[in-house]
Amino acid sequence: MNNRGRTKIEILAVGSEMLTPYHLDTDSLFLTRHLNRLGLRVSYKTVVGDDAEDLAACLRTAFERSDVIFTIGGLGPTRDDRTRETVASTLEKRLLFQEHLWEQIQDRFQKRGISISDVNRKQAFIIEGSVPLDNPNGTAPGLWLESPQHTIALLPGPPREFEPMVADLIASRMQEQREGYLVRRVLKLAGVSESRIEDRISDLYPEENQDLEVTVLASPEEIEIHLTAFSGRSENDAEHNLSRVFTAMRERLGEDVFSTQEENLEEVVGKLLEQDAATLAVAESCTGGLLGHRITNVPGSSVYFLEGVEAYSNAAKIRLLGVSPSLLENCGAVSPEVSASMAEGIRAGSGATYGLSITGIAGPTGGSDEKPVGLVYISLAGPKGMQTKKNLFLGDRLSVKRRASQTALDMLRRTLEREQTARPRG
Amino acid sequence: MNNRGRTKIEILAVGSEMLTPYHLDTDSLFLTRHLNRLGLRVSYKTVVGDDAEDLAACLRTAFERSDVIFTIGGLGPTRDDRTRETVASTLEKRLLFQEHLWEQIQDRFQKRGISISDVNRKQAFIIEGSVPLDNPNGTAPGLWLESPQHTIALLPGPPREFEPMVADLIASRMQEQREGYLVRRVLKLAGVSESRIEDRISDLYPEENQDLEVTVLASPEEIEIHLTAFSGRSENDAEHNLSRVFTAMRERLGEDVFSTQEENLEEVVGKLLEQDAATLAVAESCTGGLLGHRITNVPGSSVYFLEGVEAYSNAAKIRLLGVSPSLLENCGAVSPEVSASMAEGIRAGSGATYGLSITGIAGPTGGSDEKPVGLVYISLAGPKGMQTKKNLFLGDRLSVKRRASQTALDMLRRTLEREQTARPRG
Repeated sequence: MNNRGRTKIEILAVGSEMLTPYHLDTDSLFLTRHLNRLGLRVSYKTVVGDDAEDLAACLRTAFERSDVIFTIGGLGPTRDDRTRETVASTLEKRLLFQEHLWEQIQDRFQKRGISISDVNRKQAFIIEGSVPLDNPNGTAPGLWLESPQHTIALLPGPPREFEPMVADLIASRMQEQREGYLVRRVLKLAGVSESRIEDRISDLYPEENQDLEVTVLASPEEIEIHLTAFSGRSENDAEHNLSRVFTAMRERLGEDVFSTQEENLEEVVGKLLEQDAATLAVAESCTGGLLGHRITNVPGSSVYFLEGVEAYSNAAKIRLLGVSPSLLENCGAVSPEVSASMAEGIRAGSGATYGLSITGIAGPTGGSDEKPVGLVYISLAGPKGMQTKKNLFLGDRLSVKRRASQTALDMLRRTLEREQTARPRG
Repeated sequence: MNNRGRTKIEILAVGSEMLTPYHLDTDSLFLTRHLNRLGLRVSYKTVVGDDAEDLAACLRTAFERSDVIFTIGGLGPTRDDRTRETVASTLEKRLLFQEHLWEQIQDRFQKRGISISDVNRKQAFIIEGSVPLDNPNGTAPGLWLESPQHTIALLPGPPREFEPMVADLIASRMQEQREGYLVRRVLKLAGVSESRIEDRISDLYPEENQDLEVTVLASPEEIEIHLTAFSGRSENDAEHNLSRVFTAMRERLGEDVFSTQEENLEEVVGKLLEQDAATLAVAESCTGGLLGHRITNVPGSSVYFLEGVEAYSNAAKIRLLGVSPSLLENCGAVSPEVSASMAEGIRAGSGATYGLSITGIAGPTGGSDEKPVGLVYISLAGPKGMQTKKNLFLGDRLSVKRRASQTALDMLRRTLEREQTARPRG
């Protein structure tokens, strides 16, 4: 333990590919999420290549400054995989051949009909004093090593081997290291800017050094407010700390909140449509298919999603959506009139409860003073009539497409929620 | 310099958010790419939070094991931003107030109409002996510090401030550190598996320890082969080392290569269509818009992309694509017959040169023994007739959609390339 009484945790990711411009150490996010649930925080993350000297230097540093060390990667059979040997030599411990591990590894190869090579033998060695950690999805076991000064876990790099091993460790051996109980809840919002959100809830932010943390993650499409509460006593206690602020924020932010369950907007819209036994069809110009793609990413969306049209050309708007040529001529393809006609056209043609349309200028070219890049009209035709919204989105082509699809889904979400609220219950 | 004669470079990313489950240090990828061009490699990457003691520990370690150290982040005005002070105290150097920097910062605020606060004053301090690095996109300058033992650069975290500062450093001060010349070329392939690729080119791999490295990055949708050549002498020399292997691989892999220019498949398809003055329309069932979305991500795609239909329901296949109800009844929506009829229907309706269709079962439900999840038919109707391909894709819903859209684009790409090759040149 360090002088401030908290366990210092270090994650050491091993692999030369993570020192190139192509790969990041993403495993550590999964491990961090699970450690946080035990009230544990990560103090250092280090990335080092497949170089025994560099790795040894990092291990010595980690032993000096940290209490618990997780290495990720370098347990494979090739000569590039040196974590097992380097940890052993740094700790001046022997490597011991384990006959039963070797049999397990041979078994595994046989079952998959692959011939085993002698290089795999090195995966059957464990560090003196360590316990092998079961690896249901790979050949090399992890290793767990406790000493009076340190706890060390050697974990494999591939996520499908790494993740179940971490989940298992957190549920079993890591329980002893628990420093408390952490609960986290998330509010997801769309259709509102970060600064407007901050203005509305900043008086609810907890005082500093309380066991409650508020983190706002903002992208141009949506905002996430993460509330994290810690208790040294129990999960209930942490939940109690959290719920007062959570409930107050939830109420304050009203219908700008689209999910408290970490769903995305297309999932929320899908549930609302299903609850109403309503159906949807879309007409997309500048988004070119993104809106339909997102809606159909949700499993089971065929229940409520009937069809869409990617009406890129004016001819398609006329033929597939019934937009009148004179309307296109007089108002232009990017206009509130054509937007509304597209929504009405797809609704009438498909027989869906709702018709949702997008038409705009995604850029980078095609803009004018009067109709700049980022100008997007969105219309929703439904049983209660038509809504059309004018938007001006900043950003590159893909950003404009993303924000347009998000705004369209959010228009539908708000409409469905309002109608459900207005409806008499029972 | 370390005992092996190469400069040891360390990147130290500072910020508590990168120790949460939500953020990774992505800045380091940009820096690594630029360092690699000077023949320099990164030996260590460390992430540490906004804690002065932890940061000081990391800095001491970096000074011991590395020659060049880049810190990223922690130069802002808040009390969480401690990089400047901590580097100074670790090196036992003073911080000096720079009147002209303070004026620049005040100017910047004034121009943007924001009132300046006294906390910003700390951004006008530099470490004794250091040179400020211009920050055109932010208030805090970077700092550059050389000593007989070390070179240290303090860089801001926000990418729009960080990236131009790195580009400038690489073009100016870092030239002295250059250890050679590195050139990189990439082959991108689709429609072929990683193991088949390795079989066909492994005899072309360079011997170990030569100044030529081959890295294969594979995803289910495409494969990238990165060739990286190093020369201590000149860029021409590195280019020369690379070109023999690159050309041999390019020839060996033939039409499986879709780009040597780091383009994505939709860009390549777009160029080929433009060269032929051909047009395209799509009919999507299980991809639900993804194919049209990808095609329209390319700026200027409105020249060749006319329209698409997201024909999710059978009614939409009948009404918008002219698929006959009896065909749907007899063969089922996921069948080679319906796939071909969709491609022909969208081609005829739109008048496009090519009609491209996708119909399949994306899952997770909806599969049967006869027609399992992942079964996808793709058809291309063109001036030379109809092609239909049966596919069985593994993976979750989104993976099936992605692989289906990629395979459809690749079918069109191969057809366009073959027709261009077959055509007599004028």
